[in-house]
Amino acid sequence: MIDRIARYMESVEQYPVRSQVTPGDIIARLPEHPPAQGQPWDAITADIDPIIMPGITHWQSPNFFAYFSANTSSPSILGELLSAGLGVQGMLWATSPACTELETRILDWLIEMLDLSDHFKSTTDGGGVIQDTASSATLVAMLIARERATHWKSNRIGIDRTFTAYTSTQAHSSVEKAAMVAGIGRDNIRFIDVDERFAMKPDALSQAIKHDRLADRTPFFICATLGTTSSHAMDPLRPIGEIAQREGLFLHVDAAEAGSALICPEFRHLAAGLEYADSFCFNPHKHMLTNFDCDVHFVRDRAALIRTLSVMPEYLKNEQTLKGSVFDYRDWHIPLGRRFRALKLWFVIRHYGVEGLQTYIREHMRLAQQFESWVNDDGRFELCAPRPLNLICFRLKASNEANEQLMDCLNASGDLFLTHTKLHDRFVLRMAIGATATQERHVTRAWQRITDEADRLEHRHRPTE
Amino acid sequence: MIDRIARYMESVEQYPVRSQVTPGDIIARLPEHPPAQGQPWDAITADIDPIIMPGITHWQSPNFFAYFSANTSSPSILGELLSAGLGVQGMLWATSPACTELETRILDWLIEMLDLSDHFKSTTDGGGVIQDTASSATLVAMLIARERATHWKSNRIGIDRTFTAYTSTQAHSSVEKAAMVAGIGRDNIRFIDVDERFAMKPDALSQAIKHDRLADRTPFFICATLGTTSSHAMDPLRPIGEIAQREGLFLHVDAAEAGSALICPEFRHLAAGLEYADSFCFNPHKHMLTNFDCDVHFVRDRAALIRTLSVMPEYLKNEQTLKGSVFDYRDWHIPLGRRFRALKLWFVIRHYGVEGLQTYIREHMRLAQQFESWVNDDGRFELCAPRPLNLICFRLKASNEANEQLMDCLNASGDLFLTHTKLHDRFVLRMAIGATATQERHVTRAWQRITDEADRLEHRHRPTE
Repeated sequence: MIDRIARYMESVEQYPVRSQVTPGDIIARLPEHPPAQGQPWDAITADIDPIIMPGITHWQSPNFFAYFSANTSSPSILGELLSAGLGVQGMLWATSPACTELETRILDWLIEMLDLSDHFKSTTDGGGVIQDTASSATLVAMLIARERATHWKSNRIGIDRTFTAYTSTQAHSSVEKAAMVAGIGRDNIRFIDVDERFAMKPDALSQAIKHDRLADRTPFFICATLGTTSSHAMDPLRPIGEIAQREGLFLHVDAAEAGSALICPEFRHLAAGLEYADSFCFNPHKHMLTNFDCDVHFVRDRAALIRTLSVMPEYLKNEQTLKGSVFDYRDWHIPLGRRFRALKLWFVIRHYGVEGLQTYIREHMRLAQQFESWVNDDGRFELCAPRPLNLICFRLKASNEANEQLMDCLNASGDLFLTHTKLHDRFVLRMAIGATATQERHVTRAWQRITDEADRLEHRHRPTE
Repeated sequence: MIDRIARYMESVEQYPVRSQVTPGDIIARLPEHPPAQGQPWDAITADIDPIIMPGITHWQSPNFFAYFSANTSSPSILGELLSAGLGVQGMLWATSPACTELETRILDWLIEMLDLSDHFKSTTDGGGVIQDTASSATLVAMLIARERATHWKSNRIGIDRTFTAYTSTQAHSSVEKAAMVAGIGRDNIRFIDVDERFAMKPDALSQAIKHDRLADRTPFFICATLGTTSSHAMDPLRPIGEIAQREGLFLHVDAAEAGSALICPEFRHLAAGLEYADSFCFNPHKHMLTNFDCDVHFVRDRAALIRTLSVMPEYLKNEQTLKGSVFDYRDWHIPLGRRFRALKLWFVIRHYGVEGLQTYIREHMRLAQQFESWVNDDGRFELCAPRPLNLICFRLKASNEANEQLMDCLNASGDLFLTHTKLHDRFVLRMAIGATATQERHVTRAWQRITDEADRLEHRHRPTE
């Protein structure tokens, strides 16, 4: 299996990036009923290539530029393997002390690596925990905020008044989902208007809060984004943080993709004002060579987090928990059980070193800059948003339909995979450079394919002479 | 790494089961700062034995009888490895069709394997999805119930009245946690009294619902348990289901540990009435040789589930989703991203076959029966709850302190690991037989160690003559 994976990583470039199957193709190749008797291992693995591989969209392909990357690396895969092999369950300190203590230490390392505020460190009143995804981190942050706003009573009695949360029109869908889950209600999120850079307008935020207070609602939570999914917009954290502080609102900062870039000092100016955050998360599983899932979530006040989520049944009581001398990470998230995910981070950070990770991230930024200049120099295309990091938003100067057709042709070819967004109601292509194996030649070829396909489209739409 | 894991699985019996370190021991062995430069792989792996292993509580040891097992197997570990190696992210059908379609098919297999109602099948209005843990399944079930009870308005406007949920005093702490997260409120869960078998009393449930209706509250959700964590009690699903149906309440059945036993026809009588359930979950990661995390969650009405959790931003739109012709599992749970977890189930079910899994489960039941008979035959001990499956609750006929001391001595020895619960305010030892490697000799030795330690305790407490 290790050899198979090694071969796969070497040859992944040769697969069509986006799976070419149609709905039902894979399921039709699978038996309707489970086998009564066990089957030989060779027979099982022989099915991987014909049944599974055609249904894989190759996130690890160097030609994968869709969504945001979910990049990985050998040390990370081996960390995941070791975690599966040890098979420990780290819900309590006592159920595997190494699973808790390694996580605590590595997350403190990351604070240093990203130059985050000391108030997130485990040696202060804060602390970090690995969540599965940024969606979960946002939900947990909103729950802490909800509890703080109700003086820890909504857990006890239910939600009996209207709480309002604030985020930008460009924020991730997980903010809305969190409000749905937490019982805040979809209609009680205020989607704050953005400026020409697609970043939240602090004045509009301030106004919206004032408006809600006048209407006797209870503003309680702001989610700012560093690097929106749509266009990588950077909300201005300092003025937003000042508003949060003045108004007494909880501030969560979602840097799911962009957070990894803070390892490089030259990008830290984007996060100016992050010291106001009560909660912050980013995903090493997006751009830090750590395979999914691994979201790193820091809070300023861990006691508030634990108070929000802790339930203590008899069967989980143990000496160290009762003494309060340890972290029991089960109280830091929704699931009870947890894998030993710190191992993969430990391997990745040690294998690459901080400087190795910086080099790797800088190379993607350089490639993105190059791609941006090519778009800029080609009169048929236009850039649609500023490019702070490794995402380029661009389009043909043509109809939405033409742009959608361009994307569909490229994706259907299997040569590369791009996805889209809408900005000002215009269909925009997103080129996200972040796969582990992506090198200059892949970006060059992607641009070649894009321009070729644009030529062909132009030709097709030209009236016959 | 594969060799290391193979060696570990062969030698796991030799480690002290419960980690012997004290808080801070592991963290003290880890550098305070991350390395600037990358380190050689040999140096990294050389740290596993001295730093990590002393802090491992060996869940895979055949002498692990604590909590419930989190058992694993080679095919499952290789499935996890392949999932990490492919590095796909299955949030949408389109982001890797095989990740979705294999999961759909395997979960339909499981319905057949457990002889569950057809209404959970993907070919009807139902369907199954892999969640990380039963805690998440319970939360998702409660959210569907909440939305149904508010005619899908609480997502929109927040929760403006008092909803009440029902579960037994013996239910898992995740029910309470779900009510906290979902904004229902801790005080709005009714913990229904249990009978002498620690199973929910249907009459008491009926009364509690009536009482809440009279007080103008809105009963909306029942969580019944097949195999409580504390004592493996089986709530009577048929009368509970009849009440749920009569009262129009949503019924979730949590069979986290015990569900795997339903693969054997002789245990299915325990689940009589399961056909009333709107939602059902169990954890192959507990007793079906599949490594953590893997909770399987079925619902009767998948449209209701999707309606509860779906948010559709532009950047996730794609042809198949818009056509409604595929499952996008991101809408079936809290996180957006998801690993390819169906691979490990596929490998496990094919490697063992249904009959192989039955044989494996039956052997643990036989060992549990044997252990129970030994307790029964030893006048110093007593059984404290019925034993429907593989958990034995027992105690010394002595003070709570003596029983706690007995457990602490056993666990400190490293020879085996047991945990406790309280039943009728009495400290009770739990012997859960479920680790993959556990054979008759381990259970025999465990009983030997327990009786030896009991002898020693008795001796120590005997007044000197």
